[in-house]
Amino acid sequence: MVYNIADILSEPEIQANKKLIDEIIINFLPSNHGIKEINLLYNMMRDYPLRPAKGIRSSICLFTSQAFGGTIDDALLTASSLELFQNWILIHDDIEDESELRRGQPVLHRKYTIPLAINAGDSLHGRMWSLLQKNHSLLGTELTLDIINEFIHMLNETTEGQHMELSWSQNNDLNISQEDYLVMCTKKTSWYTCITPFRLGNLIAEKKNINKNKFVEFGTNLGIAFQIRDDILNLTADSKYGKEYAGDII
Amino acid sequence: MVYNIADILSEPEIQANKKLIDEIIINFLPSNHGIKEINLLYNMMRDYPLRPAKGIRSSICLFTSQAFGGTIDDALLTASSLELFQNWILIHDDIEDESELRRGQPVLHRKYTIPLAINAGDSLHGRMWSLLQKNHSLLGTELTLDIINEFIHMLNETTEGQHMELSWSQNNDLNISQEDYLVMCTKKTSWYTCITPFRLGNLIAEKKNINKNKFVEFGTNLGIAFQIRDDILNLTADSKYGKEYAGDII
Repeated sequence: MVYNIADILSEPEIQANKKLIDEIIINFLPSNHGIKEINLLYNMMRDYPLRPAKGIRSSICLFTSQAFGGTIDDALLTASSLELFQNWILIHDDIEDESELRRGQPVLHRKYTIPLAINAGDSLHGRMWSLLQKNHSLLGTELTLDIINEFIHMLNETTEGQHMELSWSQNNDLNISQEDYLVMCTKKTSWYTCITPFRLGNLIAEKKNINKNKFVEFGTNLGIAFQIRDDILNLTADSKYGKEYAGDII
Repeated sequence: MVYNIADILSEPEIQANKKLIDEIIINFLPSNHGIKEINLLYNMMRDYPLRPAKGIRSSICLFTSQAFGGTIDDALLTASSLELFQNWILIHDDIEDESELRRGQPVLHRKYTIPLAINAGDSLHGRMWSLLQKNHSLLGTELTLDIINEFIHMLNETTEGQHMELSWSQNNDLNISQEDYLVMCTKKTSWYTCITPFRLGNLIAEKKNINKNKFVEFGTNLGIAFQIRDDILNLTADSKYGKEYAGDII
């Protein structure tokens, strides 16, 4: 039997989790500053998180926590922080890739400007760490720091992968080895879409440090499959897809 | 007696500290990756840190640690991370402000491209957190997390200040109240140049959490003085200054 991702994501349990995550993010992000410029920054930070999204990464984190005997509650702040990671990095990626659409609407730097959008990405990045800080009262010092360490590693892998893809794209380099393509997918996609969400769910359930290789091979392969599917969708999908044709590739 | 900042910075003790910080950063940042694209990213990350700089923020952190009975050694990784903060945020600021020169050389996005430079800034940002992680074996879990929390707060203040200044500049808004100008200086400059470096030095010496208001008023005022001086220099300095005329202001 072949599962369609849209069917999986419409499962009531996934929808319920997605609602919890959305609520945490929207209640957490700042709003209504007395200085009108800062108020605009707050609106920019809330823009992508308010657009409809699948929430795959937070779902993986929550279900992995449950699968290893942990609770959804313990993993909620961390899973929400994964969505903030996705959102701030998309703001920067959309500038770097010169994208036009994100989730069916104009990208942030077209609604505002590139300078304001770069800074709004950095600002949302800062709030991601602030949300992770809030784990302290729930999970204690050690586990809070372990979770932060997972995010740091994920960030370093992701920017290296993004650099590889950007370099090829800028140089019109079509002479890429399969080996390098797979390294790029692993760094750019597998870590933040699969490996780290799985590891975080497991870590939160176990409440102690897990082996540094756990989920790396499995998550690498699943992430590569995700990226290949995403690249094909970018060439074949219809207008409901929400991004422009071939925008991720050329 | 009026002290010239160049005289202060040429003091042997400050020069010796600066050398220690430079060594930590250069030994810490990754180099020589087998994949040539990632190797280029590593070169981009080392570019600004290798340019001559004053190292004011790390000096404040180290001397404050000593002044409160702590050691230079305990504060070195944290002080070096302050310099990494300065370097990655300058990469992004230079794009946002459309600057041409940084420390007497072309800005990073002119040597490479805007997309690669945005991502290199994010990548260097990631390495800043990695360097802060290394405090763990030296200072323990609690203090490592306290230091990370100071950096998170500094980041959130700085991006709000940068947004205010960018908004005024983009809108050609000359009708700014003195109150708003001082809020902007405090957020954009005082936190990362004065308040947080002082607080970190104190925190590392005390080895326990310090009052959240400590150094805030003093550092705010010193930072505002620094920013006003910097704005005037931007209009009056000679060619040794290393930035283009009025580039920070218009």
